[in-house]
Amino acid sequence: MPEFFQTHMPNNLCFGCGTLNPEGLQIKSYWEGDEGVCIWNPDPKYRGWHNVVNGGILATVIDCHCMGTALAAAYRAEARPMGTEPIYRYATGTITVRYLKPTPSDRPVTLRAHILEIKGRKTTVACDVFADGEKTAEAEVIGIRVVEGDNATDPHFQDPDAP
Amino acid sequence: MPEFFQTHMPNNLCFGCGTLNPEGLQIKSYWEGDEGVCIWNPDPKYRGWHNVVNGGILATVIDCHCMGTALAAAYRAEARPMGTEPIYRYATGTITVRYLKPTPSDRPVTLRAHILEIKGRKTTVACDVFADGEKTAEAEVIGIRVVEGDNATDPHFQDPDAP
Repeated sequence: MPEFFQTHMPNNLCFGCGTLNPEGLQIKSYWEGDEGVCIWNPDPKYRGWHNVVNGGILATVIDCHCMGTALAAAYRAEARPMGTEPIYRYATGTITVRYLKPTPSDRPVTLRAHILEIKGRKTTVACDVFADGEKTAEAEVIGIRVVEGDNATDPHFQDPDAP
Repeated sequence: MPEFFQTHMPNNLCFGCGTLNPEGLQIKSYWEGDEGVCIWNPDPKYRGWHNVVNGGILATVIDCHCMGTALAAAYRAEARPMGTEPIYRYATGTITVRYLKPTPSDRPVTLRAHILEIKGRKTTVACDVFADGEKTAEAEVIGIRVVEGDNATDPHFQDPDAP
């Protein structure tokens, strides 16, 4: 089993990628060479039309997968394991998704992301979406590193409602 | 109570705007002058970080609201009531969202959309997102009219699993 980027995001309640969100998508991302890969199985409730994935939910998967890839790439660029301090987190600045054809909702969806540019705290990621090997959407996501710190004390990750 | 665009989308199982999707966001959009308005109350499960709406879910609300506004504008341009035939439906071609600041998840989010251009089957919509009167995101969504027909027989809307 590959090492998932999301394993190294403690206290993550995010709807898209949080391991602590039981009602979320809980996507998993991993390296395949220089590509961040995510294989996602759509639930029927996330349809837009019959047998078509809702475009916004697809954008959600793309967004979280690209920010995870930006994060993993930052650790890679510093040649240190994910999860070591200083802890980083990326937030989306801009996302653009082009829907090329309907993405079927009854089979696995594969996302393949690669880094276009790392410039200081800003990382630009490209992502292609495939179903049955056919490209159905393409995206560009700009992430900003908004956290550089000690995870244990960072208020972004502290949910006062958590048990 | 305003007349909601979504009232005139029969058989709609969409996660974002479908009245037939009990697990969906079920957003409601209406005209206020020339602006399509949507007021959405985020559920805590749709957070990205603590007290911040997940960006992908925000894109989902923006997307469905803008496609609803494109649809309503098409009927308006033809000076006929929504829901009369020929039935129209729009699908998203491209969406771009710029996140200006975190959108809080503990209060209503207001979306205000307006038509930038209608050119044949292609409609471009701009949308601003506000929380407490402060703009937190802005978007541009290009919609394509993919259905012009008789709703009763259009296969896009027929869910064979529906009761």
